[in-house]
Amino acid sequence: MRIPLVRRVLEANDLIAAELRAGFEKAGLFAVNVMGSPGAGKTSLIEQTVEHTGSRLRIGVIEGDIATSLDADRIARFGVPVVQINTGGACHLDAAMVRKALDRLEVSGLDVLLIENVGNLVCPAQFDLGEACKAVVCSLPEGDDKVLKYPAIFSLASAVVLNKLDLLEHLKFDLSGFRRHLGELNPDAVLLEVSCVSGEGLERWMEWLERGARNARQSGGR
Amino acid sequence: MRIPLVRRVLEANDLIAAELRAGFEKAGLFAVNVMGSPGAGKTSLIEQTVEHTGSRLRIGVIEGDIATSLDADRIARFGVPVVQINTGGACHLDAAMVRKALDRLEVSGLDVLLIENVGNLVCPAQFDLGEACKAVVCSLPEGDDKVLKYPAIFSLASAVVLNKLDLLEHLKFDLSGFRRHLGELNPDAVLLEVSCVSGEGLERWMEWLERGARNARQSGGR
Repeated sequence: MRIPLVRRVLEANDLIAAELRAGFEKAGLFAVNVMGSPGAGKTSLIEQTVEHTGSRLRIGVIEGDIATSLDADRIARFGVPVVQINTGGACHLDAAMVRKALDRLEVSGLDVLLIENVGNLVCPAQFDLGEACKAVVCSLPEGDDKVLKYPAIFSLASAVVLNKLDLLEHLKFDLSGFRRHLGELNPDAVLLEVSCVSGEGLERWMEWLERGARNARQSGGR
Repeated sequence: MRIPLVRRVLEANDLIAAELRAGFEKAGLFAVNVMGSPGAGKTSLIEQTVEHTGSRLRIGVIEGDIATSLDADRIARFGVPVVQINTGGACHLDAAMVRKALDRLEVSGLDVLLIENVGNLVCPAQFDLGEACKAVVCSLPEGDDKVLKYPAIFSLASAVVLNKLDLLEHLKFDLSGFRRHLGELNPDAVLLEVSCVSGEGLERWMEWLERGARNARQSGGR
């Protein structure tokens, strides 16, 4: 009995996600579902992005968390439009939560919408939020085996941001092994090795976002 | 319609968990449900524990993962009884999985059973595995806000193991803030600050395990 119900929940989610996707595409907006473990650096990446984007991109942010508005507060300091979703215990965002958040976020005129999911390397993978791309943030201290141990989420990623590169010399982390595992599982994913502390590699992430935004704009006829 | 079904799933789980708990108590076995984010260091902690426990404790291990037997392989090197559960995508262990794993694990004569849950700071909190105690492993690179952002799991913990203390000097981590947040949320939890790399603090964790094992043995009349 359980499986059909789960399927119905996912189907209901997909209908709302399709509606969101159509809206984003029509608006020429590049929506990215940013996923990763607790503490991988999702919010730090978004902070760095909005701080250094200048006039290159107009960015809006949806912050998903189980509790607190800590992350939205961090982002709001940079003066970009941001809305916090508190899931009240739920382990992932779903499309209905995003649709509701959009009531409080003016997206017209934006180039990029970054949707930060709940810190979780498992459940968010199952829920389409209408995004154009999924980005997975993973960090060196988590260990070099994460692609092997959490294949579902990495197989869906268009971009994998490997964060905390500044800690490499203090850790036992097999960087070439990580690259190989990702390349074997998902050869289409772009791997971006960055440090949100030193700034290393962030330029490539910004270029990836700009490319996505350009494509979205063109598709949307803007 | 969804909530009653979730409740039934949890109730079914609780029945099996109660049966497991009765069995552990009768056997005088101290069972610990070890939870935490991906890469927090759950397996490293268990490795250190089985390596340094010597004749102090007889330990058995159940390793829960979505995919691979990497963690069980790491533990098996130390010659302790270990069984791998692969959840096949599920984001947490449940009591039925543990019961099934026990078919392949001889627990008579053991003092401690360490059950490593799937790397996830959300979902495992909801599922009783029949354990005597829940331990949450959290690591410095995850950031000092984790207690605030994932309160459910920290509020259930008997022990919180704050790992990767060796990286403290390379991070911005407010240790007194972390202690304060945990003390406010769950004053009964024992906080154990450790490094599985340097070994710092592990003696206190071992003592915590020994105390639990002693209590379990006495309750079980061994």
